[in-house]
Amino acid sequence: MSVDFKTLTEFHALLEAAPAMDQKAQGEAEDRNGQLTKPPGALGRLEDLAIWYAGWRGNGRPTIEAPQVIVFAGNHGVTAQGVSAFPAEVTEQMVLNFQHGGAAINQLAKAAGATLDVVALDLATPTADFTQEAAMSEDEVVAALATGWNAVSAQSDLLVVGEMGIGNTTSAAAIANTLYGGDAADWVGRGTGVDDAGLVNKARVVAEGVALHGAPKGLEALRTLGGRELAAMAGAIARARGLRIPVIMDGFICTAAAATLDSEVAGALDHVVSGHVSAEAAHGAVLSQLGKEPMLSLGMRLGEGSGAAVAINILKSAVACHSGMATFAEAGVSDG
Amino acid sequence: MSVDFKTLTEFHALLEAAPAMDQKAQGEAEDRNGQLTKPPGALGRLEDLAIWYAGWRGNGRPTIEAPQVIVFAGNHGVTAQGVSAFPAEVTEQMVLNFQHGGAAINQLAKAAGATLDVVALDLATPTADFTQEAAMSEDEVVAALATGWNAVSAQSDLLVVGEMGIGNTTSAAAIANTLYGGDAADWVGRGTGVDDAGLVNKARVVAEGVALHGAPKGLEALRTLGGRELAAMAGAIARARGLRIPVIMDGFICTAAAATLDSEVAGALDHVVSGHVSAEAAHGAVLSQLGKEPMLSLGMRLGEGSGAAVAINILKSAVACHSGMATFAEAGVSDG
Repeated sequence: MSVDFKTLTEFHALLEAAPAMDQKAQGEAEDRNGQLTKPPGALGRLEDLAIWYAGWRGNGRPTIEAPQVIVFAGNHGVTAQGVSAFPAEVTEQMVLNFQHGGAAINQLAKAAGATLDVVALDLATPTADFTQEAAMSEDEVVAALATGWNAVSAQSDLLVVGEMGIGNTTSAAAIANTLYGGDAADWVGRGTGVDDAGLVNKARVVAEGVALHGAPKGLEALRTLGGRELAAMAGAIARARGLRIPVIMDGFICTAAAATLDSEVAGALDHVVSGHVSAEAAHGAVLSQLGKEPMLSLGMRLGEGSGAAVAINILKSAVACHSGMATFAEAGVSDG
Repeated sequence: MSVDFKTLTEFHALLEAAPAMDQKAQGEAEDRNGQLTKPPGALGRLEDLAIWYAGWRGNGRPTIEAPQVIVFAGNHGVTAQGVSAFPAEVTEQMVLNFQHGGAAINQLAKAAGATLDVVALDLATPTADFTQEAAMSEDEVVAALATGWNAVSAQSDLLVVGEMGIGNTTSAAAIANTLYGGDAADWVGRGTGVDDAGLVNKARVVAEGVALHGAPKGLEALRTLGGRELAAMAGAIARARGLRIPVIMDGFICTAAAATLDSEVAGALDHVVSGHVSAEAAHGAVLSQLGKEPMLSLGMRLGEGSGAAVAINILKSAVACHSGMATFAEAGVSDG
């Protein structure tokens, strides 16, 4: 495997050096959009999405042929604090379910015409309990970032990253709280289904973790409060930028992982759109902080990349219209 | 072509006699949904949609293999009142564009794996100007209903109906106003792009039409204020019910046409879901009156069935999860 970074400092430098949108292609896409056989703006958000995609692909009339979904799985020491309704062994059981094709993301990736890769990160070695010490050492978080980085195929033209990890809504809530402040209770939700007492316990755990590590920001938030699958998602999102592969973010955990990149280097998520807003209450608040408008709001809260996988269809529809429609001149239609 | 009705009275009788959802299949789908490898409710709206679809198809584990999109086109005498930003000949030009594959709906139907049929209804003979007389005679509206009825393929397993007709947002606004009351100004919008003066003119035209015909309801609203493509959409939606084909409604005009069925016979749209809420402001209000929650809100306002065609992907994703996922028992995953 190629390794492009060995420290968080080197990874930071790659984020700083990331390419910008291709403004020429974006301009060509805007021009084309104005000539298509429809009233101006009548395709709404689909028009914006197609132009955004064209700009990042460097092609004013692009297609989407090879979407890639990657699900990363990790285990969390913070489950020792009783933060999840499911036992930790479910992470590994669900990885087997992904590999056997039985999970939601298998069906959704197939329905969207996407390939699916499943990457389990050291499931036998959970991260440390972040209420006691940093979830990961620098070497550990760099290894997880590199796993994500290397999982992205250069042949992909669209990336979705998702996750599975019992306990990881607590990790995501801690990251959101340390990045954006407020009370821990504002950032915790029911995850896979904890009760009211569980919710109070999650808020305690989040508050303790954020305080112990001194309210870290950026990649340090990812290292101290995150998890291997969160770091892998962040690494994959960063790698996609270098390859000019647009990314659709999934739910709360994916968005929290991505937010550490934005916190580290402003603009690091310019090649990323939000696929959906989940039923996990804090997700919408993180999206607002990032200035990202979700494509879908269907009350989903599964993770696995599931909401973003559904949103692939929206982006494909947008690009299909943009690149496949006739212009007024081609069709001989009166232009208003 | 088979003809199942020759009068509005006979059509009404068919609406009254329409089949109900298959409660046994619905129950089987609910049972299956509870056993799938995900936390309860974690797929949100997708779960409700899959169970609804299963109930209407009479199959607790259904698939979607043959979605059909039908675009109906008609011309409107009310364009004599200057209600549209585009000239009436655009209706026919766009029909040619549909036939040549250059419109948005061509790309969207293909992206959703749906067949597309285009049905032009007597474009050379616009309906009457509804500010002067009824848009259609009973024979005319029955013929348009029958055209829609006969356009539905019995082999389809999902139906989207859309429209093209310069002037038809005015017709839809008049139907919404006569069915639900309030001021004409509350129901008119910019359509394909009229200016502020055009908006005032549209409200005048709507108010005059509703007053002239005595605020009709149900099929009489469709006859006096509608258009041929609106009646055809209503006929297709009614036919789909008899064939147990679930329907996804498109935007404001499609929804107004459908609403006349609901106004005629309560429950006539139980086999129908809303694909999206459009940027035409009154659309959301009509959906609220019908108790329909849209799947998408993307600021689209094109018609042609475009929003509903995008929503096909959502329903396919929902059904793919429902019927393709493993159960906890099959996958050996701990159930909480």
